[in-house]
Amino acid sequence: MVQRPRPRRPHAPARAPTPSPTPARDDDETIQGLHAGLAVFATRPDAVMRVAFSRAVRSEVGALARWASDRGVPCHETSDGELDRIAGGSHHEGLCILARPRRWLSTGDLADLLARTRGTCLALDRVRNPYNVGAILRSAAFFGVDALLLGAPAPHPGLAPTAVRVAEGGVEHLALARTTDLADTLTRLRQRGVRVVGADGAAKDDAMGARFERPAALVLGNEREGLADRVRAQCDTVVAIRGSGAVESLNVAVAAGVLISRMTTLLSS
Amino acid sequence: MVQRPRPRRPHAPARAPTPSPTPARDDDETIQGLHAGLAVFATRPDAVMRVAFSRAVRSEVGALARWASDRGVPCHETSDGELDRIAGGSHHEGLCILARPRRWLSTGDLADLLARTRGTCLALDRVRNPYNVGAILRSAAFFGVDALLLGAPAPHPGLAPTAVRVAEGGVEHLALARTTDLADTLTRLRQRGVRVVGADGAAKDDAMGARFERPAALVLGNEREGLADRVRAQCDTVVAIRGSGAVESLNVAVAAGVLISRMTTLLSS
Repeated sequence: MVQRPRPRRPHAPARAPTPSPTPARDDDETIQGLHAGLAVFATRPDAVMRVAFSRAVRSEVGALARWASDRGVPCHETSDGELDRIAGGSHHEGLCILARPRRWLSTGDLADLLARTRGTCLALDRVRNPYNVGAILRSAAFFGVDALLLGAPAPHPGLAPTAVRVAEGGVEHLALARTTDLADTLTRLRQRGVRVVGADGAAKDDAMGARFERPAALVLGNEREGLADRVRAQCDTVVAIRGSGAVESLNVAVAAGVLISRMTTLLSS
Repeated sequence: MVQRPRPRRPHAPARAPTPSPTPARDDDETIQGLHAGLAVFATRPDAVMRVAFSRAVRSEVGALARWASDRGVPCHETSDGELDRIAGGSHHEGLCILARPRRWLSTGDLADLLARTRGTCLALDRVRNPYNVGAILRSAAFFGVDALLLGAPAPHPGLAPTAVRVAEGGVEHLALARTTDLADTLTRLRQRGVRVVGADGAAKDDAMGARFERPAALVLGNEREGLADRVRAQCDTVVAIRGSGAVESLNVAVAAGVLISRMTTLLSS
């Protein structure tokens, strides 16, 4: 999760490079997946630089292809083999988009946003598995969470292409910020009035009785280790989802879904 | 999901077979995963026929290894390479157990069980991805659901080794039944007084207002297609988890977690 792998770009020429209308930059992002790609087109079309798709999704990408044609953005129907090559694997669902870098808010701007809008934020403390991260982003967008704060080790917390794909477009509906010192960032959010609720299977307080108040941040921890001690210490309250004891814990993406559902239901009622 | 792959058995000799104290049968099951394996030992030790584990988990499997030694059950510390060979992959978490076949209730016995205990049941309508199935089983056990009804196409609905591993031992805490005609089985459950609640993203009724009554069955549908029409028609009510509209749906395992949490909270209060 720390540094995303860099798959080959759509239409990167195998041998002789040809001039492109929009020169690729090193921090451009290859978006893989049908819903993930269409969400980029729906929410920030000007970020779309090149498109490659398979025949199987021709009808789903019709509007994107017409738009690209009108704007002179390179857009080609191609073979699954070529898409596999671009995506560095077979999980592209027939669509790859080379996109301008996504916007990351500074943590100060995130604090401003939450304070101003009395919004909700999800914070991830070293959640590693990109399938979990993707499912969590999908749930956050589904339930209308406003922002994601990605806490991960230095040097460069980022979103893996798999996480973006598994989020099914959810990433494009969240304000994004990242930090290599989540405890410090949470301290700053609390200073701006954000109520911080941590999730920890060993906590004494039942999540079903958790008090959420806007602006709110819900913090989820690493799959094996849970919340770091420094992060836990910065939470206003730490809660656990109560279980039968038959198994020790829930999958982190399932726990996130249960808690986000609870938080957003309480805050919208 | 329909037919589980058949990984090689722990300690299956590469060339010269040696006599085994408990002859392996064709329907024996290779359990992979530390929590999954330890749950078999904790809940049905007499099913354990052979054990192979890696040095890395020696302390975690100490009680199992001592028990096996006392009983003359073959149990060996071995290399990761050998475990990879037994498991047919690297996701064994250091433990493989060859176990006697697990018990499946007939659907009639499931109906008896639910009617007698006023219990709760989760029914899966062609949920395919073993990671989703595993996470759902883990959530069901975590929240104290009593039974799982696996609905899948003929000839033989079963649990993939990956689903059993991802369930982290949860499978051993659920009564299991399976059917190739889920709609028909649900009809029979309803005739025995079970209230059947289906989950469908397109339903009009909000899941947060869903009425659950014991005995209860919650039905979840295929990742892409949702509930089959025949299955939906057998539900007493069909509910949707309400979202913001930013993304179309939740991951099925996340949706299951949210709904199981809701169902078990309501039924225990």
